[in-house]
Amino acid sequence: MISPTEAVSKKLKNYIDLTDQELGTLAGMPGRSLMIPAGEDIVHEGQSGHRAFILQDGWVMSYKLLPEGARQIIDFQVPGDFLGLRSLLLRTSDHSFEAVTDVRVAEVKAHDMLSAFSSSPRLAMAILWAVSCDEAMVVEHLVNIGRRSAIERTAHFLLELGARLRLIGVGTAQGYPCPLSQYQLADTLGLSAIHINRVLRQLREQKLVTFQKGLVRFDDLERLTALAEFEMGYLDQIGPILVK
Amino acid sequence: MISPTEAVSKKLKNYIDLTDQELGTLAGMPGRSLMIPAGEDIVHEGQSGHRAFILQDGWVMSYKLLPEGARQIIDFQVPGDFLGLRSLLLRTSDHSFEAVTDVRVAEVKAHDMLSAFSSSPRLAMAILWAVSCDEAMVVEHLVNIGRRSAIERTAHFLLELGARLRLIGVGTAQGYPCPLSQYQLADTLGLSAIHINRVLRQLREQKLVTFQKGLVRFDDLERLTALAEFEMGYLDQIGPILVK
Repeated sequence: MISPTEAVSKKLKNYIDLTDQELGTLAGMPGRSLMIPAGEDIVHEGQSGHRAFILQDGWVMSYKLLPEGARQIIDFQVPGDFLGLRSLLLRTSDHSFEAVTDVRVAEVKAHDMLSAFSSSPRLAMAILWAVSCDEAMVVEHLVNIGRRSAIERTAHFLLELGARLRLIGVGTAQGYPCPLSQYQLADTLGLSAIHINRVLRQLREQKLVTFQKGLVRFDDLERLTALAEFEMGYLDQIGPILVK
Repeated sequence: MISPTEAVSKKLKNYIDLTDQELGTLAGMPGRSLMIPAGEDIVHEGQSGHRAFILQDGWVMSYKLLPEGARQIIDFQVPGDFLGLRSLLLRTSDHSFEAVTDVRVAEVKAHDMLSAFSSSPRLAMAILWAVSCDEAMVVEHLVNIGRRSAIERTAHFLLELGARLRLIGVGTAQGYPCPLSQYQLADTLGLSAIHINRVLRQLREQKLVTFQKGLVRFDDLERLTALAEFEMGYLDQIGPILVK
């Protein structure tokens, strides 16, 4: 487990080369730490807490329930990611967050973020950047569902997760541990559970990628990347733009 | 046509009650004004200008082209909206912007935004809020395509546009002018042009909404809202949270 400051500064330093003073401001921002067991909601849609969280340990999913019960998973969060930065600003949260595994989060209040922005406008830019990256991912998921075939979108999603995890030092070019169920994959990719099962079998039989027993193994990363037309530019993690 | 400051302050004042000094900072932010004819790109995907725009007049669409030529429209922008706030922060733009009608935009440079943040952290919060609202809309579009039927998602989209336009004083509960083509609607909603044509006919025949000759007319707003399960909470425009 990493401290909230470590996790976030690791993420933000991809954009901005934070000074010691800015790191101090960042360290002062998160409040109490909370443990949430797998399967429990962290933020409900419609809740108005005006607080966000920094994910320190574990996996979280953000999703939206439709009135008739269908669920669309919007994204997953891994350590170092913010949860509900939008809930902090919007009147009510526009979607819910659920712990996929047991997780530890650190709370950030709107008031503390405003204070941090006052003492460091560069920190404000960095957080705006983090929100921008998150939105770029949602855009990719929209393109996935709107215009990519079931096999392409599944390949794209598994590659994206791998790329995100490698940036926080989890997994390798060979693969990564992945706690997601086929139901969660289906609700992410706009497919039925039967369909995702068939697509995963196809990907395995074509020796592209194997997702079994909590492990994603890239069997042929090059062909998989070509199939998904995966370009990780939108993850935007190749070194700071704003230097000290 | 409205000045860039008017347009944006109108949008931001839904979140934050800006002081005269903050309005002054905002007014000092946008740079030169540009006219862009309908059909031309404003920002290309992969471009790295580190600048954003404030839309003053006209309609813009943001979209992503897939390598094999398919297009997914992510969202439309109307006067007062930012264009490419993300391009300002990300290394390269993750998608493109095209003028739907002739438009006028005001340029905002990353450097100027950083200066504005330095003199007003509340302005930083307000702009973060605007980005959050934009992302909430992309999330709704993801849910639209992933989990709503063709007729529901079309109804939802036409209601969302109406709600956004009314906030800037365009249109009424009866309807609004809409310059979009059926092709653009199709590429927004992940449908074929033939399919969207059929869906629009259904909506018209069921006396819910009529989209013809550049005009969206709500024939039965209540039934349409129920069909789409449209709740405008995510547009989050019901008066400032942060007061002076």
